Amino acid sequence: MVSSTAAVSKRLKNYIDLTEQELDTLSRMIGPSRMISAGGEIVHEGQSGHRAFILQDGWVMSYKLLPEGARQIIDFQVPGDFLGLRSLLLRTSDHSFEAVTDVLVGEVKAQDMLSAFSSAPRLAMSILWSVSCDEAMVVEHLVNIGRRSAIERTAHFLLELGARLRSIGVGDAQGYPCPLSQYQLADTLGLSAIHINRVLRQLREQNLVTFQKGVVQFNDLKKLTELAEFEMGYLDQVGPVLVS
Amino acid sequence: MVSSTAAVSKRLKNYIDLTEQELDTLSRMIGPSRMISAGGEIVHEGQSGHRAFILQDGWVMSYKLLPEGARQIIDFQVPGDFLGLRSLLLRTSDHSFEAVTDVLVGEVKAQDMLSAFSSAPRLAMSILWSVSCDEAMVVEHLVNIGRRSAIERTAHFLLELGARLRSIGVGDAQGYPCPLSQYQLADTLGLSAIHINRVLRQLREQNLVTFQKGVVQFNDLKKLTELAEFEMGYLDQVGPVLVS
Repeated sequence: MVSSTAAVSKRLKNYIDLTEQELDTLSRMIGPSRMISAGGEIVHEGQSGHRAFILQDGWVMSYKLLPEGARQIIDFQVPGDFLGLRSLLLRTSDHSFEAVTDVLVGEVKAQDMLSAFSSAPRLAMSILWSVSCDEAMVVEHLVNIGRRSAIERTAHFLLELGARLRSIGVGDAQGYPCPLSQYQLADTLGLSAIHINRVLRQLREQNLVTFQKGVVQFNDLKKLTELAEFEMGYLDQVGPVLVS
Repeated sequence: MVSSTAAVSKRLKNYIDLTEQELDTLSRMIGPSRMISAGGEIVHEGQSGHRAFILQDGWVMSYKLLPEGARQIIDFQVPGDFLGLRSLLLRTSDHSFEAVTDVLVGEVKAQDMLSAFSSAPRLAMSILWSVSCDEAMVVEHLVNIGRRSAIERTAHFLLELGARLRSIGVGDAQGYPCPLSQYQLADTLGLSAIHINRVLRQLREQNLVTFQKGVVQFNDLKKLTELAEFEMGYLDQVGPVLVS
């Protein structure tokens, strides 16, 4: 049984060393857990309803479909991440969320979030921090597509996923489990499926990183980091900035 | 004399109809105004110091420089926008901010923001909303570069700027003042300066939009919106979602 706040507590504690009382407020902010099967839709673009979710277990992807059918994957969410915070805050969601694996989510309502902020303002700061990190990642993906070569952006993305997972206690410097398909990688990195296949082969043949059978394995983390010019400062996961 | 909170109040009121008392808390959160000349740096990538700013007057751009010298402009900020909220929240800023015109900014410190959140939790919600809108814009820019043609992405960007400015009372359905250079547009849209020049000429010759002498003039707003498949839902500026 996964605790409803285990991952999100771990994540937010990277910014603020939340007290027991604040963690208690956080857990009261989250509704009952819900299971959604792989491929299921969590938030639909254009949907209103002011609901968001916290991902408790599994992987989710956020994407935008363009009218002519092209799909741009914005980002993936891992346990501890918020899903569709914008559909809670904004009038309508600006993009869709779909479960990549079977997932467990807990619902958050706008009114409950406001109550939680009243009794725990540091919780508001930590959620603002979490959203800021999310934006920083989208910025990196923009730079990936705008200015990095196919091999650099693929390396950067695989390193970023690894760093995010380590911050919630998954994987290590050797690698991590990764349920993504090559099609999903392609739609994230603005490459064709054939192109991503070639890039992954190149990375493997250069003995930098291997992505096979649901596992990303770092063969030479240092060289891969140099190739991608990966600086994890924007993920900001060294330890709490604000302490109690 | 520009009021230190005029623009940001107008902006946040798009989400929550803030009370006099909440607006007062907001104004106490903002330090003394500072003038920065066009071209001046406001926040430097990699800088730490936990300071952010609210833009009170003028235009700012946020960008990332890549090691080999390429520049990717992430977004532009207009009055009422936060600058470098991530450098306040994150350990270091993940990108740089530079004044496009002469600007007036007010400083915000992490501790003052936390105090403000304690006395006005709805202010926390509205700032979280504002950051979410910023992220939604970066998502659109990602989709622009990843999946839209040069002419579509340019049209989309010019429409987005117009909608943002109208929400703070600048410009109208005819157009708006725009201090950006073609080089800045090119670095925003992932195009070369020659390419953006050609695209702008195309848009002008098709009588859709004219960008000349610091003014964007919509010649046919309806057709331009269709071409760009621009849906302003993500800017969410129809009126307050949460009322007092």
